[in-house]
Amino acid sequence: MAIRAVVWGENIHDRENAVVQGIYPRGMHGAIADALNDDPDIEATTATLEQTEHGLTADRLASTDVLTWWGHRAHGQVRDEIVDRVAERVWQGMGLIVLHSGHFSKIFRKLMGTPCALKWREAGEKERVWVINPGHPIARGLDASFVVPQTEMYGEPFVVPEPMETVFISWYDGGEVFRSGLTFQRGAGRIFYFSPGHEVYPIYHDKNVRQVLRNAVKWAANPAPAWSTVSQAQNVPTEKAPEPLVQRGPSLHASGEAGFR
Amino acid sequence: MAIRAVVWGENIHDRENAVVQGIYPRGMHGAIADALNDDPDIEATTATLEQTEHGLTADRLASTDVLTWWGHRAHGQVRDEIVDRVAERVWQGMGLIVLHSGHFSKIFRKLMGTPCALKWREAGEKERVWVINPGHPIARGLDASFVVPQTEMYGEPFVVPEPMETVFISWYDGGEVFRSGLTFQRGAGRIFYFSPGHEVYPIYHDKNVRQVLRNAVKWAANPAPAWSTVSQAQNVPTEKAPEPLVQRGPSLHASGEAGFR
Amino acid sequence: MAIRAVVWGENIHDRENAVVQGIYPRGMHGAIADALNDDPDIEATTATLEQTEHGLTADRLASTDVLTWWGHRAHGQVRDEIVDRVAERVWQGMGLIVLHSGHFSKIFRKLMGTPCALKWREAGEKERVWVINPGHPIARGLDASFVVPQTEMYGEPFVVPEPMETVFISWYDGGEVFRSGLTFQRGAGRIFYFSPGHEVYPIYHDKNVRQVLRNAVKWAANPAPAWSTVSQAQNVPTEKAPEPLVQRGPSLHASGEAGFR
Amino acid sequence: MAIRAVVWGENIHDRENAVVQGIYPRGMHGAIADALNDDPDIEATTATLEQTEHGLTADRLASTDVLTWWGHRAHGQVRDEIVDRVAERVWQGMGLIVLHSGHFSKIFRKLMGTPCALKWREAGEKERVWVINPGHPIARGLDASFVVPQTEMYGEPFVVPEPMETVFISWYDGGEVFRSGLTFQRGAGRIFYFSPGHEVYPIYHDKNVRQVLRNAVKWAANPAPAWSTVSQAQNVPTEKAPEPLVQRGPSLHASGEAGFR
Repeated sequence: MAIRAVVWGENIHDRENAVVQGIYPRGMHGAIADALNDDPDIEATTATLEQTEHGLTADRLASTDVLTWWGHRAHGQVRDEIVDRVAERVWQGMGLIVLHSGHFSKIFRKLMGTPCALKWREAGEKERVWVINPGHPIARGLDASFVVPQTEMYGEPFVVPEPMETVFISWYDGGEVFRSGLTFQRGAGRIFYFSPGHEVYPIYHDKNVRQVLRNAVKWAANPAPAWSTVSQAQNVPTEKAPEPLVQRGPSLHASGEAGFR
Repeated sequence: MAIRAVVWGENIHDRENAVVQGIYPRGMHGAIADALNDDPDIEATTATLEQTEHGLTADRLASTDVLTWWGHRAHGQVRDEIVDRVAERVWQGMGLIVLHSGHFSKIFRKLMGTPCALKWREAGEKERVWVINPGHPIARGLDASFVVPQTEMYGEPFVVPEPMETVFISWYDGGEVFRSGLTFQRGAGRIFYFSPGHEVYPIYHDKNVRQVLRNAVKWAANPAPAWSTVSQAQNVPTEKAPEPLVQRGPSLHASGEAGFR
Repeated sequence: MAIRAVVWGENIHDRENAVVQGIYPRGMHGAIADALNDDPDIEATTATLEQTEHGLTADRLASTDVLTWWGHRAHGQVRDEIVDRVAERVWQGMGLIVLHSGHFSKIFRKLMGTPCALKWREAGEKERVWVINPGHPIARGLDASFVVPQTEMYGEPFVVPEPMETVFISWYDGGEVFRSGLTFQRGAGRIFYFSPGHEVYPIYHDKNVRQVLRNAVKWAANPAPAWSTVSQAQNVPTEKAPEPLVQRGPSLHASGEAGFR
Repeated sequence: MAIRAVVWGENIHDRENAVVQGIYPRGMHGAIADALNDDPDIEATTATLEQTEHGLTADRLASTDVLTWWGHRAHGQVRDEIVDRVAERVWQGMGLIVLHSGHFSKIFRKLMGTPCALKWREAGEKERVWVINPGHPIARGLDASFVVPQTEMYGEPFVVPEPMETVFISWYDGGEVFRSGLTFQRGAGRIFYFSPGHEVYPIYHDKNVRQVLRNAVKWAANPAPAWSTVSQAQNVPTEKAPEPLVQRGPSLHASGEAGFR
């Protein structure tokens, strides 16, 4: 069965900014979904901020294997209960690909537990993305490095936890470096952050970037059944302990009672 | 200069439950602070939920090197703005020691980005804490293992990110295991989670547990100046790029303008 | 195409010890290969110490996706050049599953860079293997824990580097714990260590253990082409630098010359 | 008590190459030791390849807290038994700082378990070292980045295991990037790799580089007693198990007998 990907887009600059509209007539989410659908093993659809529940109903998330996230200007408009719902699905096993300015999205900051801050400059400079981990599935089919001819600079320090793997590091004309491809694991969910993708340049039309997107979705898809109890603190009563056990001493809780939370 | 530690306690069971009061007449936070103050290199004071701003004003946190956190029944009563304030200080470099049922505290879940769930059983069973990383400063002065004679069982899976280091793993009478001592790094702040500490047993009077508390505070103290800009996305204008750079192409932002957030 | 697995066995106790022979009439490697071949996506064959080049010729390794390794009594008889050859293939992308007493094999110690020591006891006690990372592919199809009725105890500290992921932790009757399933990455190669498997008990006939073996082989298989240059220090001459560059200052090496090694 | 550092140098180019001799009249090891001795908390001495046992007798290593390692041309002349001796001391808790071309030293490759290969170019280009982890002790006192005016380029992929922490990443004139400061842990020993230090440029006279060297030595010093049993597989006989245990079933080993190795 194909991997079911949902491409989430803020869809604001895409409609309101002439430059962005010129590059992405069907929205950035449209271009990203096209890139994914170039792979027969992926079935990508889109969801956007202005839709009911931002297009991310519980039912839809339950049938999503990997979610990609692009937002920039309206992070604050994403409703907290939807963010919590997405986080819960990631913990259960849904993959999450966070793109570019999504570093400051509520969902990424919630999953990282850090500010996710970085340095930035919008000068249209050149970025060279180096493959650090050539054996990694996300680097499949790439050369040792590839160039994004015009980019927004994102510079270190990028305030995220130490990643599981550093897949890419970028070099910039202006003298900075950035860990542009990082993997994380939260619960059963795999997370990939990928920094190229500023909206006023045609980055999601780039061949290598599109390859990375497809690779990342395939890497992040976890075929295991959803870990539905990932957020629950299960009580194991004394009589159900794996080894025979006799209750001893004082107690706060009656047997089988739910814990405090 | 001594390490300035603040021992935060929920201080509810400590006042309302006769068993807990019997064991900890001056509160669990009192016992923990005593354990820390046994070390001349640590100066520990206490703060509790019912105090103004939970005893954690901005000024006090600014002059705190390491915060320890014990809560159980009233996680939901800790105000979100105080949680955000503590998180910001951790990112800036304040150490954080999270104890026992603090696994479900708002601050720990916020910093981990995961549910922090686990299995549990309150049977007064025996726990044997094994040292996994004997060269680690937090294990200093301990034997290969030590016993907590009566404990609440905390069992795997413990839903936290892969730790920086696994310092302790516990064995239980009833057949479970638990990663009882784990380190994490968030921004410039070091975090240690330590699971023994159920309130109806005299665990914070135990010699080995007290040694771990002292070791952990000393490990978590970061002598570097506070990283005051850890949450800020600094713009680097084209004319201030490390390498000479000419602005090219379209732009969303005027030069030097703050980014979206 | 099926994953090509080679099951390497020392094949000494299997032939010389009556107990082992009784449990594994076709050798432990035979039983492990059978377990793998129960999965139609795996094609497992065997290789043993006494064969020419220990059954691990360069050609055979070049067409091996995943190697499993069981040795105990004769680690020292494995020739160093074969160990180097296996390591090179792991770095290039071959998966490696190290089993039980293989913790002290030359190949595992070489890839870990640590002594790989542990505590041990051969008392036929019970081991309960807990799943720490239920979303991990290696835990697929398992319950929260499973029991190995009779086992050799392996106890912490297990002197390996911090793993990429802790998949399993074992509880023992006798009071110890052990990180019984750990993943590592070296170059493009994925490594999984799994501790159950003492030769005088029928552990490789156990349903859950066999499931873990199959899961591990599938997880460790890297479909990327071999990283053939993984051990080479490639010179990038000035005239081939990605950015235009002018040679400056003194030099040890003539242009294009090989580096010291 | 001051940290006892030993600065190991190959001392070949230092004597035979006029350029190197001009920059480092008392050898590179001399310059590095001077940098360390600028800190009153460090007492640095030197050892070199041509000395008996390469200056690294068992006694001397036993009283060394941190060893720094610079070699380039004669890695193969370092005797294997000395390499094994150094590794054992690292596992026991001695810190190790590996410098520049030391990436290909026997000791670093042994401790990493990977080829430690990289790309290189000797063009005298500029390197800008970025601080990725500003709260890390090794970055203490540094600005956001510092420049090495003339350097040998070291480029990714650097074939080492995922580090514990990425402290520095370097940007080069010629378009490459490199993880120039990485930490690792092996047993009780902390390891720091730092790439600047090519011998034909005066890099160890640079103020920032010298600060990094001092910071690294202080970070790597482990005050814990040596972990003298780190390489031993200790048998725990049935009668000494932490929990009462009855021997069951068949056995390979007589009670208390040493394991195979």
